[in-house]
Amino acid sequence: MDDTRFMQMALELAARGRGLTSPNPMVGAVVVKDQAVVGLGYHQAAGGPHAEAHAIDAAGEKARGGTLYVNLEPCNHTGRTPPCTLKIIAAGIRRVVIGMRDPNPTVAGGGAEFLERHGVEVCRGVCAAEAEALNEVFVKFIQTGRPFVIAKCAATLDGRIATRTGDSRWVTGAAARAFVHELRQSVDAIMVGVGTIVADDPQLTTRRAAGPCRDPLRVVLDTQLRIPPAARVLRHASSADTLVVTGPEAGDDAKRRIVGPGVQAIVAPLREDRIDLGALLGQLGQRGITSLLIEGGSRVLASAFREGVVDKACFFLAPLITGGDDGVPVCRGRGVARMQECTRLVRVTTRRFGDDTLIEGYVPRVRGARPEA
Amino acid sequence: MDDTRFMQMALELAARGRGLTSPNPMVGAVVVKDQAVVGLGYHQAAGGPHAEAHAIDAAGEKARGGTLYVNLEPCNHTGRTPPCTLKIIAAGIRRVVIGMRDPNPTVAGGGAEFLERHGVEVCRGVCAAEAEALNEVFVKFIQTGRPFVIAKCAATLDGRIATRTGDSRWVTGAAARAFVHELRQSVDAIMVGVGTIVADDPQLTTRRAAGPCRDPLRVVLDTQLRIPPAARVLRHASSADTLVVTGPEAGDDAKRRIVGPGVQAIVAPLREDRIDLGALLGQLGQRGITSLLIEGGSRVLASAFREGVVDKACFFLAPLITGGDDGVPVCRGRGVARMQECTRLVRVTTRRFGDDTLIEGYVPRVRGARPEA
Repeated sequence: MDDTRFMQMALELAARGRGLTSPNPMVGAVVVKDQAVVGLGYHQAAGGPHAEAHAIDAAGEKARGGTLYVNLEPCNHTGRTPPCTLKIIAAGIRRVVIGMRDPNPTVAGGGAEFLERHGVEVCRGVCAAEAEALNEVFVKFIQTGRPFVIAKCAATLDGRIATRTGDSRWVTGAAARAFVHELRQSVDAIMVGVGTIVADDPQLTTRRAAGPCRDPLRVVLDTQLRIPPAARVLRHASSADTLVVTGPEAGDDAKRRIVGPGVQAIVAPLREDRIDLGALLGQLGQRGITSLLIEGGSRVLASAFREGVVDKACFFLAPLITGGDDGVPVCRGRGVARMQECTRLVRVTTRRFGDDTLIEGYVPRVRGARPEA
Repeated sequence: MDDTRFMQMALELAARGRGLTSPNPMVGAVVVKDQAVVGLGYHQAAGGPHAEAHAIDAAGEKARGGTLYVNLEPCNHTGRTPPCTLKIIAAGIRRVVIGMRDPNPTVAGGGAEFLERHGVEVCRGVCAAEAEALNEVFVKFIQTGRPFVIAKCAATLDGRIATRTGDSRWVTGAAARAFVHELRQSVDAIMVGVGTIVADDPQLTTRRAAGPCRDPLRVVLDTQLRIPPAARVLRHASSADTLVVTGPEAGDDAKRRIVGPGVQAIVAPLREDRIDLGALLGQLGQRGITSLLIEGGSRVLASAFREGVVDKACFFLAPLITGGDDGVPVCRGRGVARMQECTRLVRVTTRRFGDDTLIEGYVPRVRGARPEA
């Protein structure tokens, strides 16, 4: 199937924009004429040209009569750039092959139908599953206004993220730890609880051996505002801000001690004495945060699963056994009463990083449910 | 490589004896003459003919001048059957290809050297790693007099084998649970703590959908002898016995209440108020138990890892999250202080059973260490 082959090419191009296009989706485009590729393009950064424009410009006059492959339905509205549909029609493209529809509930279908009304043949749903997976973040955000939430954890086989002394260096090996920096590179924000800051004083920056590094916004949950002013997350140089999320009763004096260049404090409502994660996600969404990586600790992870805000879970399992129950558990707090009440991941995949195993899966979204704004 | 191909055949034949040959190793043999297989055989049951005898008998006169492939060095001593070396020489075999040497420290090398002295060409170490892995149980037992110990566990991603109410039905799916019965079929004994008996009242029998079922000896650790006399493990019909292991202070009255047909009680020394697993393994080895599957619960697993008696770990991870730390942990008791002190598995492999992941690995044996008898 040539359609599949060229769409795979578009998907691979699209993925080159990973970590760079937020809040836009990752999009790749391929112009084909007489079975030959005559133009390639991908969306390289928010505000820049769309993939279709790159590919059509690259094809030039050869685009006329050709086929455009694009993993996401072309836009039909004027945003920071003019509508791609007009550009496609003007270039004389005869046929457009689309991976997935525009998931934006207010514009879905607009682009494809506009093209068809103007005599362009449209083929939908080629490599649809891959296209949906590639832009899972964009789909969630555009449909709910909230970030796509990834819960990440690195534990021993007996379910401990640190020993009884708090030692967690290291649970996983170098390959798994390097992959965490790829995850950080791909998200808009990272979140931890203040307990993790106190215990480990992490930088929460992106440190990759190769390729560009872009720090995500760092979000610290700190109901009582007990973060040490000397914490590295408040002090070190980074292109991204740190956002300290407090409860309504955190003192103004404490706030003044920590805010400054690159450090903001916001107030979120509480739910059972802890930050209401659903409400906070709404606030983060309003700030344009489309994806959030939760890196711990145990209480934050547990709350995130219990409140049902996790979209995807990434559990690294190291081939280690602490041999006791006095280490730091993966989740803290009250768990379910029955096994059948557990959060059950679906679309589970398993990958190896050296001797560590990454088990990934998705928390099913309740059909038709729409979180309050 | 023809040698590799025929040795693979011998290994596959050998594996047909899985669960049936204890305390003997699994052995397969192939006789090849002029590139053609002229005889096949495997060791089918302890006390029966060795693989070499089966294969040579099957080859008949065609064995003369041929090559014998066998995954384990042929025996050179008279046990329940005459030495295979004499049979090989008498049959006129010209060349013998061996997977691994006889690991028995008192006879190692004897068979191969005897053959060479009688003019038979011997080639050693073909598919040696596969041969060692296939007979890992036999190697451990013959070298130490103690059973090869497999620690098995089925947990959620947040490290719980049951919820706070004790519910553990089910952690893993049907495919993983079926594989546990394959494990049971392959071992001489299963061990659990009395807590597991009280909580779950398991049968601990082998129940396979297809193929023969052979129940292992059931070993229950019960220092204070508090097993309920109505426990299924004491009552149900099985071809194998149940062995209740008590501390020195368990009362004779209690013992009398439980022993009977198929149920024995033995006393093992204590170590920090719990059964000394190292000493117990010596006792089990003396009873001819070559392999032991530890199925839980948390205290037994933790003790086994802490005491260093585990050879292989099989951790099933289900894509479930209980969301708290009040469920039953994988291990109970005092764990390590530093991550570097953890038991670290080596030769780690990962397999999928439906949505469950099995992480298997080996606990490295300390070179040169010999456990006390």
